[in-house]
Amino acid sequence: MRQLVQELLQGNRRALARLISLVENDDKRKAEVLPELYRHTGKAYVIGITGSPGSGKSSLVDRLLESVRRDELTAGVIAVDPSSPFTGGAILGDRIRMQEHALDPGVFIRSMGTRGNLGGLSRATREAIQIFDAFGMDLVMVETVGVGQSEVDIVKYADTTVVVLTPAGGDSVQTIKAGIMEIGDIFVVNKADYPGTERTVAELNAMLDMKGAEDWRAPVLPTVAVRGEGVDRLWEAVLRHRELLESSGRLQAVRRERARQELADQLEHLVKSWIWEKIRARVPYEEMVEKIMARSMDPYSGAYRLLEEIDFPLPQ
Amino acid sequence: MRQLVQELLQGNRRALARLISLVENDDKRKAEVLPELYRHTGKAYVIGITGSPGSGKSSLVDRLLESVRRDELTAGVIAVDPSSPFTGGAILGDRIRMQEHALDPGVFIRSMGTRGNLGGLSRATREAIQIFDAFGMDLVMVETVGVGQSEVDIVKYADTTVVVLTPAGGDSVQTIKAGIMEIGDIFVVNKADYPGTERTVAELNAMLDMKGAEDWRAPVLPTVAVRGEGVDRLWEAVLRHRELLESSGRLQAVRRERARQELADQLEHLVKSWIWEKIRARVPYEEMVEKIMARSMDPYSGAYRLLEEIDFPLPQ
Repeated sequence: MRQLVQELLQGNRRALARLISLVENDDKRKAEVLPELYRHTGKAYVIGITGSPGSGKSSLVDRLLESVRRDELTAGVIAVDPSSPFTGGAILGDRIRMQEHALDPGVFIRSMGTRGNLGGLSRATREAIQIFDAFGMDLVMVETVGVGQSEVDIVKYADTTVVVLTPAGGDSVQTIKAGIMEIGDIFVVNKADYPGTERTVAELNAMLDMKGAEDWRAPVLPTVAVRGEGVDRLWEAVLRHRELLESSGRLQAVRRERARQELADQLEHLVKSWIWEKIRARVPYEEMVEKIMARSMDPYSGAYRLLEEIDFPLPQ
Repeated sequence: MRQLVQELLQGNRRALARLISLVENDDKRKAEVLPELYRHTGKAYVIGITGSPGSGKSSLVDRLLESVRRDELTAGVIAVDPSSPFTGGAILGDRIRMQEHALDPGVFIRSMGTRGNLGGLSRATREAIQIFDAFGMDLVMVETVGVGQSEVDIVKYADTTVVVLTPAGGDSVQTIKAGIMEIGDIFVVNKADYPGTERTVAELNAMLDMKGAEDWRAPVLPTVAVRGEGVDRLWEAVLRHRELLESSGRLQAVRRERARQELADQLEHLVKSWIWEKIRARVPYEEMVEKIMARSMDPYSGAYRLLEEIDFPLPQ
């Protein structure tokens, strides 16, 4: 394991792939690796890209990578699909994408599915970001299907969040989920060669004007990702947003909040793991479940009893 | 508090309202109340109703209440809006709904907003279900806006889940979020007087046929809730689904799983509360955050250190 870390820090792509698999599989050995990596992190800038299925996120990311490479920056991409049980490279589209960039040492694309556990995916995403960061990637792009909780999660890790929409056609943008308007630092209306683009852009702008800008008013940018149209302007907007965050000190504040949250998560994770290991080893948990079913015990008192059994130092 | 419980068990509606406020506000005193109530629960049947904003869920629930009352059953309604910061009766629509049923002792409608904490809302919903249950309501209907995680949550508590859709108009149902197809025991296509209804119903049926039924094939029912059309058939479907769950023993199995989950949640909640209380009282948490920011400490080791400081019995 220690050697794997050394190899990663030396820029070995196989080590990179193996370490990401480790966190994706929630392999126990990651506990030996992640603490070691941590001090090599904190340099990568994280861009979140979220949008519904079919909005063209992947094409957009692919084109964005061209701008990134032109500026001589390197990037890791994590394509998160919470609705997919598939993982690492198992999706055909991702295989193709990975081949395209296979010869470019400055890009590494990796997809991750849920295996039915959203919490686990969120954790694995954070850990994969750290691995890319320690590897030395300048940027990490996290591409996620916008379905509820996963959008909220992306904001937790992304420095700049790009929301990808498509022309609303007959529908009004008003039907866009309220939450989406809150999380975007930049809005993209992709497939801007379809009818309804102008109206969608105008409506989004109106909604954003209503919100009232502080120091950053989220721009609304039409793109045609498959033809690369508008992607340069998107990349410029990302750079401008980054500059603002850095010069205003907000990036530092956000990252402090993130460190605080990660410490809290680790704490709770450690404690919960400890508790459950103890309980599984020693306590008649199923008996307690039966008592609760029979209403001879309530879950509140039941939880107390179980903690007493494992000598957890509860307050009296 | 003890008296409030007594009043609830005697059917006092003011006690009911006050206890629900208690869990909605996450008032500490609920810890005195909920364990006492628990043995009076387990009788109510829980119906979850989810759909996007504007799908007509509320009208549907109102009409369903007529069928429920005709069968001489009583019902509590929890209208959950995860996107709304408003709470208990603060929404105009709910006030009107509440007035309509104000003279009917067999119905009690209550709305709950998030206050920005989805986890807390989920917990409050579960506790409110228990309060209605102990009060003696035959049914509890949980009405929730279908946005991501909240749908998943509803399934955790509902015995029968009704998914409310509307005619897809120009769009194909294919754009329906995959998750939605998994959670519905019954599908309703409301506003069935709009164009596109037949096609939407047919497409849903085709998707459900592809899924392959086990012992229950989810029916797809067109309704026009505002005129009460189709609501009787919906009510019959709910009753049939309930009968199947009961006769097959699946209701029992699901409720056992729910008891197990609730015990686990209580355990983790107790432990986390204990940990954070200790840490807040004794530990230089912010100093640790700064060390992590400076990369002189990693969050994994930091969490260990903090737990050592509060004498948490960690494995060596």
